[in-house]
Amino acid sequence: MSTPLNEHRTSRRVEFADTDMAGIMHFARYFVFMETAEHELLRRIGGDAGLPPHDGGRLAWPRVSVSCDYLAPARFGDEIEIRVRVLRKGTSSLIYGIELRRGETLLARGRVTTVCCLIGPDSALKSIPIPPALAERIEEAPELLETRAGF
Amino acid sequence: MSTPLNEHRTSRRVEFADTDMAGIMHFARYFVFMETAEHELLRRIGGDAGLPPHDGGRLAWPRVSVSCDYLAPARFGDEIEIRVRVLRKGTSSLIYGIELRRGETLLARGRVTTVCCLIGPDSALKSIPIPPALAERIEEAPELLETRAGF
Amino acid sequence: MSTPLNEHRTSRRVEFADTDMAGIMHFARYFVFMETAEHELLRRIGGDAGLPPHDGGRLAWPRVSVSCDYLAPARFGDEIEIRVRVLRKGTSSLIYGIELRRGETLLARGRVTTVCCLIGPDSALKSIPIPPALAERIEEAPELLETRAGF
Amino acid sequence: MSTPLNEHRTSRRVEFADTDMAGIMHFARYFVFMETAEHELLRRIGGDAGLPPHDGGRLAWPRVSVSCDYLAPARFGDEIEIRVRVLRKGTSSLIYGIELRRGETLLARGRVTTVCCLIGPDSALKSIPIPPALAERIEEAPELLETRAGF
Repeated sequence: MSTPLNEHRTSRRVEFADTDMAGIMHFARYFVFMETAEHELLRRIGGDAGLPPHDGGRLAWPRVSVSCDYLAPARFGDEIEIRVRVLRKGTSSLIYGIELRRGETLLARGRVTTVCCLIGPDSALKSIPIPPALAERIEEAPELLETRAGF
Repeated sequence: MSTPLNEHRTSRRVEFADTDMAGIMHFARYFVFMETAEHELLRRIGGDAGLPPHDGGRLAWPRVSVSCDYLAPARFGDEIEIRVRVLRKGTSSLIYGIELRRGETLLARGRVTTVCCLIGPDSALKSIPIPPALAERIEEAPELLETRAGF
Repeated sequence: MSTPLNEHRTSRRVEFADTDMAGIMHFARYFVFMETAEHELLRRIGGDAGLPPHDGGRLAWPRVSVSCDYLAPARFGDEIEIRVRVLRKGTSSLIYGIELRRGETLLARGRVTTVCCLIGPDSALKSIPIPPALAERIEEAPELLETRAGF
Repeated sequence: MSTPLNEHRTSRRVEFADTDMAGIMHFARYFVFMETAEHELLRRIGGDAGLPPHDGGRLAWPRVSVSCDYLAPARFGDEIEIRVRVLRKGTSSLIYGIELRRGETLLARGRVTTVCCLIGPDSALKSIPIPPALAERIEEAPELLETRAGF
């Protein structure tokens, strides 16, 4: 039996296809980086429970709301450290807080609210309670408290 | 001399590459749809003033913060109406409110804060006051007030 | 009863999110522009026959092979004319030839081979003959013959 | 002094944002996976020579032509092994052969022709001979010979 998780860290390099003509990572790609960390967290949890997060498209976690504050630009080749925390666990929803850093520099802070859904045969999404095998392995964690200097 | 603008409407179809394996538009792509409408608004303004929004990469509008609430999924082939409004005009920043609809159905509401920047030779971004030729053609508008039924 | 189709033309603007830090449209995005034209062609055909190309994820046209020659860069804001032709219609496959132009300038030429597939409940892809209602509305057309000057 | 390189291997997981509603990796994303491996190869070469491949947007490797054969679908969560080889080194161009595999299964084979370019202040691209410090560290390798069973 594994201990519950409330945080996951990973890293990912900014690729050429992530950049735009302003020479920085396109703002929408930050959300893909956040999703990477979120899915790795779910994989750690769900893999153990035999419930991969999106197996054959049956289970899905569509977003209800997302936000991101951009503090410093990420550039091609940057190695980004991504840190995700479960801030709140509801009956069928999870709220994540996410930070992107390059070394000591905080680049972006995001928040993502997702809802556990079943995908029906017609691709309809229906919210369901988080399956117990998953829910019992997820813990809430305090906010990632960071001074957002000069912002 | 043209009248100032505070709103723009456009439409765009959800494409196959916008979807994900949950059968809906990937959440990060909504921000690209928002950016489409924003850039069309800037093009209407800046084209007239001889200042296209990103000419040769010198002027750029990086994001400071963005958010999106997802109310109903957008699907492949959907014709999405996008409506963008300038909610606040600062010295060097603009705040946009954006709505995505499919017919009468409100799909998503976004907010985007951008800062007018010059791109230096080393791709450094430096915030500047919005050029007067642009600023005088942009007006603030009231919030897009919509009842977010059942949300 | 409609006449068969062998060509479709459409246009699409290069967006900020399509660009990369080299200041041009990222090469992989050209394939999305090609897919746009292909799906519009299929929509014209399939809509009439009551068989939209990807309704509920049951029918799909995965690629078997694709190629693209890049002749001149597409840039932010460019209005790209896309022209797609059905070069070959097999029992279950279609080969498209596609051109991207900005005004008189040929930017890129692509070729795309797709196979008509059914998506099973487990997301398995199984090739099938093109449904007659679609196949009878698709005609082969000669190659788009263009002198590729200076290339 | 380092030995010349002619091959690089890396791996990358298929992410949710890489998938489309057919439940597989979108075909255009394969080219991003190929670019990942190419840039890692260039980084190994150029880093040593003090010439990062895209430093400040001055040096770039736009594509002249690309192609991909798709042999088996890649799916969400798949760990893809990417293998890139320099098949031909010209004065200013490089031709890469690339394979994507999941375990023993060959998923896709690509070919990419790039040209070494300088990006001018107006974002104009001008082809140049590959800088000697780079060229002398790149070697040609034989084709990745693989039986493409059943294809």
